Amino acid sequence: MRLVELLGTKLPLIQAPMAGVQAHALAVAVSNAGALGSLPAAMLAPAALRDELAALRDGTSRPFNLNFFCHRPPEIDAAREARWREQLAPYYREHGIDPAAIPSGPGRAPFSAELADIAEAFRPPVVSFHFGLPVPELLARVRGWGAKVLASATSVDEARWLEARGVDAVIAQGIEAGGHRGHFLGGDLDVATQAGTFALLPQVVAAVRCPVIAAGGIASREGVAAAFALGAAGVQVGTAYLLCDEATTSALHRGALRGGGARTTALTNLFTGRPARGIVNRLMRELGPLRADAPAFPLATAAIAPLRARAEAAGSGDFSPLWAGQNTSGCREVGAAALTLELAQGIPEEFRR
Amino acid sequence: MRLVELLGTKLPLIQAPMAGVQAHALAVAVSNAGALGSLPAAMLAPAALRDELAALRDGTSRPFNLNFFCHRPPEIDAAREARWREQLAPYYREHGIDPAAIPSGPGRAPFSAELADIAEAFRPPVVSFHFGLPVPELLARVRGWGAKVLASATSVDEARWLEARGVDAVIAQGIEAGGHRGHFLGGDLDVATQAGTFALLPQVVAAVRCPVIAAGGIASREGVAAAFALGAAGVQVGTAYLLCDEATTSALHRGALRGGGARTTALTNLFTGRPARGIVNRLMRELGPLRADAPAFPLATAAIAPLRARAEAAGSGDFSPLWAGQNTSGCREVGAAALTLELAQGIPEEFRR
Repeated sequence: MRLVELLGTKLPLIQAPMAGVQAHALAVAVSNAGALGSLPAAMLAPAALRDELAALRDGTSRPFNLNFFCHRPPEIDAAREARWREQLAPYYREHGIDPAAIPSGPGRAPFSAELADIAEAFRPPVVSFHFGLPVPELLARVRGWGAKVLASATSVDEARWLEARGVDAVIAQGIEAGGHRGHFLGGDLDVATQAGTFALLPQVVAAVRCPVIAAGGIASREGVAAAFALGAAGVQVGTAYLLCDEATTSALHRGALRGGGARTTALTNLFTGRPARGIVNRLMRELGPLRADAPAFPLATAAIAPLRARAEAAGSGDFSPLWAGQNTSGCREVGAAALTLELAQGIPEEFRR
Repeated sequence: MRLVELLGTKLPLIQAPMAGVQAHALAVAVSNAGALGSLPAAMLAPAALRDELAALRDGTSRPFNLNFFCHRPPEIDAAREARWREQLAPYYREHGIDPAAIPSGPGRAPFSAELADIAEAFRPPVVSFHFGLPVPELLARVRGWGAKVLASATSVDEARWLEARGVDAVIAQGIEAGGHRGHFLGGDLDVATQAGTFALLPQVVAAVRCPVIAAGGIASREGVAAAFALGAAGVQVGTAYLLCDEATTSALHRGALRGGGARTTALTNLFTGRPARGIVNRLMRELGPLRADAPAFPLATAAIAPLRARAEAAGSGDFSPLWAGQNTSGCREVGAAALTLELAQGIPEEFRR
């Protein structure tokens, strides 16, 4: 089955869910333009998720994608947390922050029965997962309302693992991609062996029978065409949408994306506890982007939050996660519909509907 | 000017120079098939370079490429060397090697006036450089015999640096590529910010006026087509040639390339002192692939050499650099001409001659 039939869209093009920089408005614009808009649920409290889904349904009658993280929440490790805050002590002093006054707690919630209850009322036609898949009972609930299921793979092994569990399509996430790496086999910090899109995509296409959606570094119609040349059934584009009118990307983040420094990104676990790609800033430079002593995902979020707040209030992105993929050359300050139609020019005729 | 006019070939396709796993025979086969064969000079002593060039000239009247490394040889740091051998002590004990008896010394020689003397006699029509460019006087000698000059860039900044110094074409080396990273701006271990081909290639194409040759992860006609879709003027393919009849790849290395483990590569500086991509093996797993305490390039070669020799004699690749890119799916046990013609099917008509 072609991806457009599977998703119910005109175009085999997915706007990547990007928690923290978009809500329903971006998804509405993309879905109405004929592609698949995505709503990221990872940073939404239950009530906010309900509101966003209602607004999304109000804004479009077209198919859309609801994205969940499905990590297993870690135990809070007080000793590890204390050691980490000791590492950050010079920054706390610099900003007049009392480390003892920083609340701990998770920054991102995984898919759960409670969230499934909320989602089910809106029957999202597509649900995508990052960090593997939820437990079978939860996955069955998603299938029960008729949703097609997508999930991210960063390796051939992960793609096979997902296909064996019945996903409808695999998103092959090359190392170029912005935001969180979706890997779930192996250790959280195991990114050294992960492959670029040019290498990952054809190997995943050869390894699984289900449609493969290319992600990572695709930011122009030429990039879209190249992904189809490599065997993709569809493409997922994130970074290029970050400057769109409908994105909620902060002014500070937008400024960083427009600057020459946006070409210099790295995977970092400093902001959340798992590797995610963002523009290199002071915190990443000074501590090194990947640290084994950072708290487990998503607990690392708490320790950085007050530093980020103080710095941002002063107009500085020194402590902000400036998520971006390696190819920011496609970022456009236009409406998301216009960008979608521009990207769609790279889609071969036989993949459209 | 199109790349075929610049290189004087029929096809805008370069067989990547791969020191240690090929000599003139592979280059001869590729050049005779209409692409540009390459002879890597980095591991050849002056007399061997002369012999190889003579054999290459005997084998083909078509254009070929002579590749040099152009690093600056480091000072030998006895204390650093001693600390490193201490790290390796358990392995020396395991193999009955006396660390004091290991000769030190460089493993790879940079371009020099002596090597230029030898090369000039053969007037190689194309010369490519890795790790930047040689000093201006040496570069002028290469230009003096009429050679076209290519050089590797791993970032937009490096591409601009090379273009400003007059290279005829830039090789955009994506993170997927096997063997040594060609980066020369920033620190030797600065690989965290380097980009995949999907992101690097279009950004380099947009940043320079000279032709851009795509390298990294290209291993099939589809990969070749995708690179042209992204704006490449030509492609360079290395890994796919490693199993060809004319390559000198060892039986052990060939076995590793054929196995499922070939999908798991990482950048490592353990074998030479600079990051190079190879199949993950015991040494890389146990020490971690990138170590700040390894001797400077190319001095790290010496400490591993006896371990490698003992292990290989016992049929083990535990201590061998098993160079490979992230996409080994294109490795074919065929003649290099056949592989060249297969890859060439991905080249759009308007780029051929």
